[in-house]
Amino acid sequence: MRLQLAGIALLLCGGIASGQEINVVVAYHSQTGNTEKMAAAIAEGARGEGVTVVLKKVAALAQADLEKADAVALGSPVHMGDAAVEVRRTLVDWAYEFGFWRSRGLENKVCAVFATGAAPSNGKEFTMLSMALGMLQFGMVLVTPYGGLGASATTGIPEHEKGVGAHELEEARKLGARMVAVARRMKE
Amino acid sequence: MRLQLAGIALLLCGGIASGQEINVVVAYHSQTGNTEKMAAAIAEGARGEGVTVVLKKVAALAQADLEKADAVALGSPVHMGDAAVEVRRTLVDWAYEFGFWRSRGLENKVCAVFATGAAPSNGKEFTMLSMALGMLQFGMVLVTPYGGLGASATTGIPEHEKGVGAHELEEARKLGARMVAVARRMKE
Amino acid sequence: MRLQLAGIALLLCGGIASGQEINVVVAYHSQTGNTEKMAAAIAEGARGEGVTVVLKKVAALAQADLEKADAVALGSPVHMGDAAVEVRRTLVDWAYEFGFWRSRGLENKVCAVFATGAAPSNGKEFTMLSMALGMLQFGMVLVTPYGGLGASATTGIPEHEKGVGAHELEEARKLGARMVAVARRMKE
Amino acid sequence: MRLQLAGIALLLCGGIASGQEINVVVAYHSQTGNTEKMAAAIAEGARGEGVTVVLKKVAALAQADLEKADAVALGSPVHMGDAAVEVRRTLVDWAYEFGFWRSRGLENKVCAVFATGAAPSNGKEFTMLSMALGMLQFGMVLVTPYGGLGASATTGIPEHEKGVGAHELEEARKLGARMVAVARRMKE
Repeated sequence: MRLQLAGIALLLCGGIASGQEINVVVAYHSQTGNTEKMAAAIAEGARGEGVTVVLKKVAALAQADLEKADAVALGSPVHMGDAAVEVRRTLVDWAYEFGFWRSRGLENKVCAVFATGAAPSNGKEFTMLSMALGMLQFGMVLVTPYGGLGASATTGIPEHEKGVGAHELEEARKLGARMVAVARRMKE
Repeated sequence: MRLQLAGIALLLCGGIASGQEINVVVAYHSQTGNTEKMAAAIAEGARGEGVTVVLKKVAALAQADLEKADAVALGSPVHMGDAAVEVRRTLVDWAYEFGFWRSRGLENKVCAVFATGAAPSNGKEFTMLSMALGMLQFGMVLVTPYGGLGASATTGIPEHEKGVGAHELEEARKLGARMVAVARRMKE
Repeated sequence: MRLQLAGIALLLCGGIASGQEINVVVAYHSQTGNTEKMAAAIAEGARGEGVTVVLKKVAALAQADLEKADAVALGSPVHMGDAAVEVRRTLVDWAYEFGFWRSRGLENKVCAVFATGAAPSNGKEFTMLSMALGMLQFGMVLVTPYGGLGASATTGIPEHEKGVGAHELEEARKLGARMVAVARRMKE
Repeated sequence: MRLQLAGIALLLCGGIASGQEINVVVAYHSQTGNTEKMAAAIAEGARGEGVTVVLKKVAALAQADLEKADAVALGSPVHMGDAAVEVRRTLVDWAYEFGFWRSRGLENKVCAVFATGAAPSNGKEFTMLSMALGMLQFGMVLVTPYGGLGASATTGIPEHEKGVGAHELEEARKLGARMVAVARRMKE
């Protein structure tokens, strides 16, 4: 009987630490399909018991998707050295159309970024920076891969396979899993 | 007679060094009028003998404006920590709609950036960076104020005058003049 | 008896959720004393029941300070448009001298940044970015003020009070408090 | 006789436009030799008739090297996501030890940046940015490769050749040549 009660207490306690549902949004813009592949890999890495993942293009995102989210990954191709217009626009929409700037409704949610670009060192870092800065404005908490700002793929590197590589998809999956791990710890 | 001929030659020669017409474009996005004030100050600083200035909102820019330009200043307010969507879009339009990416038609033109934002250290640098990176993609040559990345105004600083200050307009005028000086030297 | 056991379980459980000691490191470089003032304000904001704060210049930091830390704030003056050499060096020392790169000993610790500079928009953002990027390399989790990348002070603004202002110290205190709040949630 | 005089005038005139000596400094830090290889390629691309190149590690640079320079390329490996401490220190030394901050002795000189790093998208862009921002502080004029911020090499990319590739050296040579072309136009 005593053990039973203690057991119930521990169960509740365990619930606080690890039993909660985690909602993840993976939002992206993609024209050639490369960023979409990375988005799918992040979603795959995030999935698991007790995790619900919404995988959507930024244009399709609803306010409720973000309200429910514990963690949000945002991805973009590099356009003229920086994040795509569509992705910058979504951040402004979150602020004013969805009202998150005033409501502070994104505060303390976990965020992460990913990007694809043709050239090895021309814009993926700045693209990821632009998205990270945008989400940090809302008081979101930024998580990154070990040794990087986000998950990225170099899709047009000379003497290298075209498109998104296996190694890059693996990096994306790891970032998805890491988002969930941090979101779980952040959730009260 | 001899001196006359030599004089003509020197005149032509002087023309190569300093007598050419300089065309300047000052392009900007503005909602509250603050960035427009900075744009006007850059235009004012650029004006002078032999200088033609086109002062336009980015949405009104024509391909011919940029083709003729020897120097281009681009300005934006800070929106969610980075350049306005309208300004990012114009850079993509220059590349693909106007075809400057393939034509390399902006290469070696002088460029400069300016920004306005409410907070002292939240986004004006990243906004100027985003525009500078965009123009550098085209092989433009970046000039800056001494000790800064561009001309900027802090429009909502606590305990300080609201809007664009006299000191900031002076910084913008100086950048306009500097663009012309470098463009003159760059012009063969 | 039963209630007693359940009580013990709840106590342990409560301990996991909110009763833990939080260790905060506020590390900075300062020459004129401005960044030191901001560091002191972050420390002040972080202090509270169950919180131990180590406030040190980067050169004085010991490996054990960082090992024990749940949250680390790093601050720098702007030197030639970017973080001070002393601050960039400390990040390299954390990696190799203290061995945190291989040990992954900083992973999941909370981090935040702060900066001071004379000019309104010349380097404080890039200085904060440089420090944030350095700490994110280690898998730290970045928290920021609402609407910004870190706490900052503009110390030489024309027509404005010299040095660190009251409003800026308040921003620093809030960031200190926020670091602790997130660190508490992150602590298993 | 008349033609002779005119000829002399044209000769002098031609001298102003294209016959001047161009002095180039290629300064870098290197530990593994990768950045040194890129530096050598930039120097190679810069060399030509009427061009003198000084190729030195940053620690070996003399004030006179920079005073004489018409164009300066600065290169760094990525250390913890950003420029090496040695390279950041050299920028501070140029400012205060060499006195270029007050003398404005670097104003209007051409500058360019290059970087090497193991990972495809982790720090080469930010490293190049840090160096570019540092040199822009002095009123230098930034030139870049078409479609990028500087010349860079990814030295540890998975499934790819280790070290600096042929394509990357070619990009560096082109940047060296471009610096000289712009410096020639800038030289009065």
